Amino acid sequence: MKLTILGCSSAFPKKDSSTSSQLLEINGKSFLIDCGEGTQIQLRKYGVKLNSIENIFISHLHGDHFFGLPGLISTLKLLGRTKALNIYGPTGIKKAITLLLKLGGSWTNYDLHFHELNSTESIVILENSKFKIQTIPLNHRIYTNGFLFTEIINEQKLLIQNVEKYKIDKTQYRGIKLGKDGISLNGELIKNSLLTEPKEEDKSYAYCSDTCFFPKIIPIIKNSTVLYHESTFLESHKKIASMTKHSTAREAAEIAKQANVATLILGHFSSRYNDIEGFKTEAESVFSNVELSNDGKIFNI
Amino acid sequence: MKLTILGCSSAFPKKDSSTSSQLLEINGKSFLIDCGEGTQIQLRKYGVKLNSIENIFISHLHGDHFFGLPGLISTLKLLGRTKALNIYGPTGIKKAITLLLKLGGSWTNYDLHFHELNSTESIVILENSKFKIQTIPLNHRIYTNGFLFTEIINEQKLLIQNVEKYKIDKTQYRGIKLGKDGISLNGELIKNSLLTEPKEEDKSYAYCSDTCFFPKIIPIIKNSTVLYHESTFLESHKKIASMTKHSTAREAAEIAKQANVATLILGHFSSRYNDIEGFKTEAESVFSNVELSNDGKIFNI
Repeated sequence: MKLTILGCSSAFPKKDSSTSSQLLEINGKSFLIDCGEGTQIQLRKYGVKLNSIENIFISHLHGDHFFGLPGLISTLKLLGRTKALNIYGPTGIKKAITLLLKLGGSWTNYDLHFHELNSTESIVILENSKFKIQTIPLNHRIYTNGFLFTEIINEQKLLIQNVEKYKIDKTQYRGIKLGKDGISLNGELIKNSLLTEPKEEDKSYAYCSDTCFFPKIIPIIKNSTVLYHESTFLESHKKIASMTKHSTAREAAEIAKQANVATLILGHFSSRYNDIEGFKTEAESVFSNVELSNDGKIFNI
Repeated sequence: MKLTILGCSSAFPKKDSSTSSQLLEINGKSFLIDCGEGTQIQLRKYGVKLNSIENIFISHLHGDHFFGLPGLISTLKLLGRTKALNIYGPTGIKKAITLLLKLGGSWTNYDLHFHELNSTESIVILENSKFKIQTIPLNHRIYTNGFLFTEIINEQKLLIQNVEKYKIDKTQYRGIKLGKDGISLNGELIKNSLLTEPKEEDKSYAYCSDTCFFPKIIPIIKNSTVLYHESTFLESHKKIASMTKHSTAREAAEIAKQANVATLILGHFSSRYNDIEGFKTEAESVFSNVELSNDGKIFNI
């Protein structure tokens, strides 16, 4: 998985930082997570082919997370897109986008599928043999979901040494990688476990923005490879964080620790902070593996 | 009047050019004309105080002319605005903005006044002793207005030489500038025409985007100081221009010539042209005083 931060500024864009948007690539498939104003500009800036996006996930209907969506949808039309686009987001998103396109007198040439969300429980919204995407119900001022992306590792790696030892012919390799036993040159059945390395664990990325400190998400994101958790404020502004249902860096780290994730990425910083290094310092007092978001920053998961 | 081009790209933003938006300043008042996606970013980039804007004029409801409006409205709230904001635009704009704010669960703290337009005749929409703003009904795929801004020059300049000659005391200056006669030190009535320079003509700025070649606008914009006229295409793409109800540079120049304006500014360039110099060349074959738009370019009118 490859994650590109397109924007990580809370509330409104700043000179050097856009509002929330991320591109996640899993096995060559591109998923857009949130779409603040100017996301299409950020996508171009970081060399993403707009047409590669097939699924867009909108956490909630605050402008800094979805005001770039109507423009992106319109631009995809103008670029001659024909393949369908799937949009997952809170109930109401279809009405909003439909109204804007109707006012402009210009429906898309491609199919636009809206998958409106209203469940307060975690549900699987997209799944195939290679990945699974489920919601992470969050606690913010309006109905909000985070999203958990799991890359399913189906293939095992061959233990070349043993494959050669038992003289397994190459036509069997694909089947063995997928879990089948092998047959040696002299007709002997060789157990799969002797021919493959132990299966790699599935990798997962949890996106949690916007939310207050909400331990109810911990069972859902438990043991994730990477957690992006909003940290709009520092502990020094805990009162405002609580009032506006946002998190502090320390609270994000507390979630990361309790969920036993490998890496925590912080983002959605309030514009009141000129220097974001303080977020890292604060979070590291609780959890050791902390990264900061920046527009254009890439994380290989 | 001072005009700042914030964006002049048609259809969608490019790396170095935003979609349509302009800031016009008349006597210290700031008027925003159109508000494509990313306008709030452009305003910050060019050092405009967002809160100085009191009136926004939206030509039509294609995304490249108003998808930046919901974000700007939200940001003004977050910046603590208290004074009212007036929005002039086609019928439907109120419903769209209202729905987006409602979905976000966040109405503005300041008054938002919508002035919805549906007349196909030119109407005066804002007027006081210093300026007058009227619509310029255009001909595009959907209902569209341009806007004519006229700065009313009320004050005449004093002819200092004569004011001194007739020994007019300074307390009379303001009245004389506004057209009154003067009284000399020895009580003689001195005609205003002897004490002032001939009155300067009112200055006007006509914004016409988007539209096909539409000579019906000529009586409205006649003798304007500056005309901004869209030129999405060159004559080599006249067929597409006609199909999409846009203008070519030559057509824009034809309007400028027939309307006898002093200066023509071209803009709203299609992304198919890497070099916009061709627009100037084409227009200059018809009309001599042609300028090209660029993001951040300032015109003093």
